Amino acid sequence: MNIVRVAFVWLGVSELERSLGFYRDLLGLVVAHREGNRAFLRGYEELEWSLCLEEGPVGAWAVGFKVASPEALEAIARWASAQGVPQTQTSFWGRGPVLRLQDPFGNPLAFAYRAEKLPRLLQEYHLHRGPGVMRLDHVNLFSPRVGEATAWYRETFAFRLTEYTADEQERLWASWLQRKGNVHDLAFTNGTGPRLHHLAYWMSDPLAVIRAADIFAGARRTDALERGPGRHGISNAMFLYLRDPDGHRVELYTADYLAVDPDHPPLRWSVDDPRRQTLWGHRAPRSWFLEGTTFFDLEGNPVPTQESELPGIPPHVI
Amino acid sequence: MNIVRVAFVWLGVSELERSLGFYRDLLGLVVAHREGNRAFLRGYEELEWSLCLEEGPVGAWAVGFKVASPEALEAIARWASAQGVPQTQTSFWGRGPVLRLQDPFGNPLAFAYRAEKLPRLLQEYHLHRGPGVMRLDHVNLFSPRVGEATAWYRETFAFRLTEYTADEQERLWASWLQRKGNVHDLAFTNGTGPRLHHLAYWMSDPLAVIRAADIFAGARRTDALERGPGRHGISNAMFLYLRDPDGHRVELYTADYLAVDPDHPPLRWSVDDPRRQTLWGHRAPRSWFLEGTTFFDLEGNPVPTQESELPGIPPHVI
Amino acid sequence: MNIVRVAFVWLGVSELERSLGFYRDLLGLVVAHREGNRAFLRGYEELEWSLCLEEGPVGAWAVGFKVASPEALEAIARWASAQGVPQTQTSFWGRGPVLRLQDPFGNPLAFAYRAEKLPRLLQEYHLHRGPGVMRLDHVNLFSPRVGEATAWYRETFAFRLTEYTADEQERLWASWLQRKGNVHDLAFTNGTGPRLHHLAYWMSDPLAVIRAADIFAGARRTDALERGPGRHGISNAMFLYLRDPDGHRVELYTADYLAVDPDHPPLRWSVDDPRRQTLWGHRAPRSWFLEGTTFFDLEGNPVPTQESELPGIPPHVI
Amino acid sequence: MNIVRVAFVWLGVSELERSLGFYRDLLGLVVAHREGNRAFLRGYEELEWSLCLEEGPVGAWAVGFKVASPEALEAIARWASAQGVPQTQTSFWGRGPVLRLQDPFGNPLAFAYRAEKLPRLLQEYHLHRGPGVMRLDHVNLFSPRVGEATAWYRETFAFRLTEYTADEQERLWASWLQRKGNVHDLAFTNGTGPRLHHLAYWMSDPLAVIRAADIFAGARRTDALERGPGRHGISNAMFLYLRDPDGHRVELYTADYLAVDPDHPPLRWSVDDPRRQTLWGHRAPRSWFLEGTTFFDLEGNPVPTQESELPGIPPHVI
Repeated sequence: MNIVRVAFVWLGVSELERSLGFYRDLLGLVVAHREGNRAFLRGYEELEWSLCLEEGPVGAWAVGFKVASPEALEAIARWASAQGVPQTQTSFWGRGPVLRLQDPFGNPLAFAYRAEKLPRLLQEYHLHRGPGVMRLDHVNLFSPRVGEATAWYRETFAFRLTEYTADEQERLWASWLQRKGNVHDLAFTNGTGPRLHHLAYWMSDPLAVIRAADIFAGARRTDALERGPGRHGISNAMFLYLRDPDGHRVELYTADYLAVDPDHPPLRWSVDDPRRQTLWGHRAPRSWFLEGTTFFDLEGNPVPTQESELPGIPPHVI
Repeated sequence: MNIVRVAFVWLGVSELERSLGFYRDLLGLVVAHREGNRAFLRGYEELEWSLCLEEGPVGAWAVGFKVASPEALEAIARWASAQGVPQTQTSFWGRGPVLRLQDPFGNPLAFAYRAEKLPRLLQEYHLHRGPGVMRLDHVNLFSPRVGEATAWYRETFAFRLTEYTADEQERLWASWLQRKGNVHDLAFTNGTGPRLHHLAYWMSDPLAVIRAADIFAGARRTDALERGPGRHGISNAMFLYLRDPDGHRVELYTADYLAVDPDHPPLRWSVDDPRRQTLWGHRAPRSWFLEGTTFFDLEGNPVPTQESELPGIPPHVI
Repeated sequence: MNIVRVAFVWLGVSELERSLGFYRDLLGLVVAHREGNRAFLRGYEELEWSLCLEEGPVGAWAVGFKVASPEALEAIARWASAQGVPQTQTSFWGRGPVLRLQDPFGNPLAFAYRAEKLPRLLQEYHLHRGPGVMRLDHVNLFSPRVGEATAWYRETFAFRLTEYTADEQERLWASWLQRKGNVHDLAFTNGTGPRLHHLAYWMSDPLAVIRAADIFAGARRTDALERGPGRHGISNAMFLYLRDPDGHRVELYTADYLAVDPDHPPLRWSVDDPRRQTLWGHRAPRSWFLEGTTFFDLEGNPVPTQESELPGIPPHVI
Repeated sequence: MNIVRVAFVWLGVSELERSLGFYRDLLGLVVAHREGNRAFLRGYEELEWSLCLEEGPVGAWAVGFKVASPEALEAIARWASAQGVPQTQTSFWGRGPVLRLQDPFGNPLAFAYRAEKLPRLLQEYHLHRGPGVMRLDHVNLFSPRVGEATAWYRETFAFRLTEYTADEQERLWASWLQRKGNVHDLAFTNGTGPRLHHLAYWMSDPLAVIRAADIFAGARRTDALERGPGRHGISNAMFLYLRDPDGHRVELYTADYLAVDPDHPPLRWSVDDPRRQTLWGHRAPRSWFLEGTTFFDLEGNPVPTQESELPGIPPHVI
């Protein structure tokens, strides 16, 4: 069941054109294809699309992973059958077959191997627009049971833990898990869930994060700038959090570190340490801790959420 | 009375070694000379020192301007005599003669032409330390009478207005005034004054501002990071505001614009416009509006301050 | 005759659309206006146009300076009359009256005060395209008599010398002269002249210079990349030299230093010092020393050129 | 025999102090440990040392790989025994056991799993010196049989091909092979070999590459700057090639792309394409094609080299 990396996100948006104004016109993501109520987008480095925007109910339909081979995909299907996990198969333009299922916590997942390889844009610099969005880097999920979710992904899909936040009782408040060798493909954040906290795109360099903030300011869309630019303590990345027209949170992210070694020691942060959120000591706004995107289940119904027993906002931080 | 530019700041600090830990060890300013209770520092581009730190009473002794010639210095002395403005002459290591006087608002000024030209460090990149502090760019003064102070500096010393903040009644809340051709050498900010709001150093590039935040975070001195990094609406500069160990505010600043044209139109900002403080919509902390450095008069006594009739914190901004 | 800065260049190009493909589509300069066979362009920081492209004979019609006042313009006209220097008056869209004359070496100059102030684009970051071209910074002229030209501009128009290249006999091979306070508005380079060596635009930051090279590479226009990116020894600037479709040379330039002080000591470089051309030791191509743009005189005839008695390519450098 | 990544290089240098002047004082690598005639260095991101400098014969003792587990190390030992490949075991400070052997082409390899985890320096920004060297990224080897070497590493150690250079007869001139998910851990370049062409360190951002050139220029060590800074066509990375005091070639490298997908299509470049060497069209100097570091075998004797049947310098490129 070898997962290579997080590879795509499938979002429901209320008005496709308005969303394209955000993702294509301001962020510079490239529309690879449109059909019906869907648009498929990618960053300048990507050979496969990484974002499917679907006009309709607002929410997140799936977090998609690329697996290492057709056999890995079959192995996941077999495992799901054996576990009694409901699954469906589908295809997207440029990607398929796609296996869909929900993890035990309710998060809707998708798995695929095959994807149409799109023309290489990385060095077509004269065509690049926007701040410099390169590739999907990770997704972050709200979870009321971070400790259990973390353990499950480590055991089931062999994700590796790179960093985590814990309190004095060593309860997990947040975790960063990777397959592709940098800090994360998947993270869990304590809070009402399952919900999508954010998806994150990798930027070409730290100045590209600054450029993104400038572009949104130029377009009088500072309302879309939720948090940052800043430097994360966790992951060391330069970041900027945006909210798209439907409130979906998008992080622009760059300059973390290589964590590919199997014996890479997970880094522990105390939930009380102000440097973990932002190395520079900046506080995150309340919305960042509380707001997220509703997930849909395989039938298209909103996935019911559960509050966390831990407070939604860490003590001593805000 | 041709003023070329703001050229130096003379600060009183409580512990010289502790201040050098800030300015030299973290910011990378170069100590050009030490004698007695004074240290003279400069950025990597400067051929003259730009900062005199003097151990003793905490405050600001003078904001220093370079004039265009010895004759310009004499003209200022004659003007001061004619106006009945008290003046004294002094010298510093590497700079002198220096004429000291107070403007009508109480701000202690210093004027000089001659300065010892120090060895060129700009291209000695192997010796550079810290984030990349290049040169003194400007000073910003708290004033309860921004409108009057602005008019006085325009008329008396031919400063040129580049940007200003006004309310609906066109009362000035802040002004940016220049002699050297970029956005400012001197700015006034509404508030209890006269006090020094901040001195600002020019950085080599926008990433240098980010690097400064990282360096202070690395040294566990996030308490010194008061505001930013960010992009100013006013001036367009990338900025970071730091507080030195005595609370003196230092801005790291870069990437504003050329304003050398005599017909450059001053840019008006509404005091209610959130983009003026930070183009990205970030709010400044209360301290930034309220706290500043006490000035000393020619006898070394604290210059008495006056509250502004305008509120200390702009409406609608915080 | 107070000159503020170099302000515009008027170039003759063979095909306007092809030139716009270079200046507008690749470099991102903004077309402020088109009329007849002319296009007027500017960088993102400029409130006045800085480049007039005129379809027709290929060459340079004028190097334009902004003067400090209408009176300064009249003073130049009076001085020219008194000296018996032929002059004409003209106007451009958005700029005028414009006084045209040739300096004693044959270089066609233009002087103007008034210009239409165009809408501010600096913070309209969402509209910016290309690598980040901000403003015209300087022009560089080939001269067979660098020493004389340098002396004439210092004496006649009070240009200030910031750097120069000399041989063991202290003959000038190149000089950098400024009015606006940074390293130069005007430079002279030894060689067959008078000819235009290059015009230079200021870039937003050093990475913008890299981005320009990438953009031209992406567009398969590496033929346009004549030299660089690199770091100049002289001026310390990051640079890239391009050749436009007619061979006019354009430099992208950023990060030099402030040289506004009247007592700023001119920096001498030996013509044999490899670090002056490129601090990193890179050699310039032969074309850079030999090729330039023909000037037109007031009647539109090519200005006759003269070879230099000094070799066209410095000894020991290539 | 799961190899994780290239992890260390063991170099012989003639004067350790002189080499530290290069690696530590100019590049800013951190000395983790010194003992006897050896120094162990690392970049700011690394938790294990990545460079062992050993005073003595000048050459390269080994290219070291990290394997995924102790079992993987044993598997390699068993495989070598089965194949009759001579092997030795050794240990270094902070790393061991280390298995040494030569590949069929004569390249001396080392394999290890265990390493002492050193204190995290990534966010100790106040301690960082030099341009920003983060971690070992790859090594590049001269080979007279690039095609065979490439095939062998793909088959034996499951390296994946990301890019390659071929001529019209599809003969391989160069190949880029990876294990850790970016463009390469290991590359082969046509030429007299086996020899080490270069080792490469990852830089924090593209400006760090510029900073490195500036630092060497400041230190009057432009002789050490062999090629660049530039943008590779192959890999898309920003690069600078340096020569250390013994002539060992070090690349500073950043901003390539993610190539972790098993179905990532290898990118073919024609040996005649000038964009592959440098996207901007720059030529590489002859030394870059011809000079390299001698390898030592397990007994410490220079590994005999063989000329390539293909020319040492690609046609049409220089």
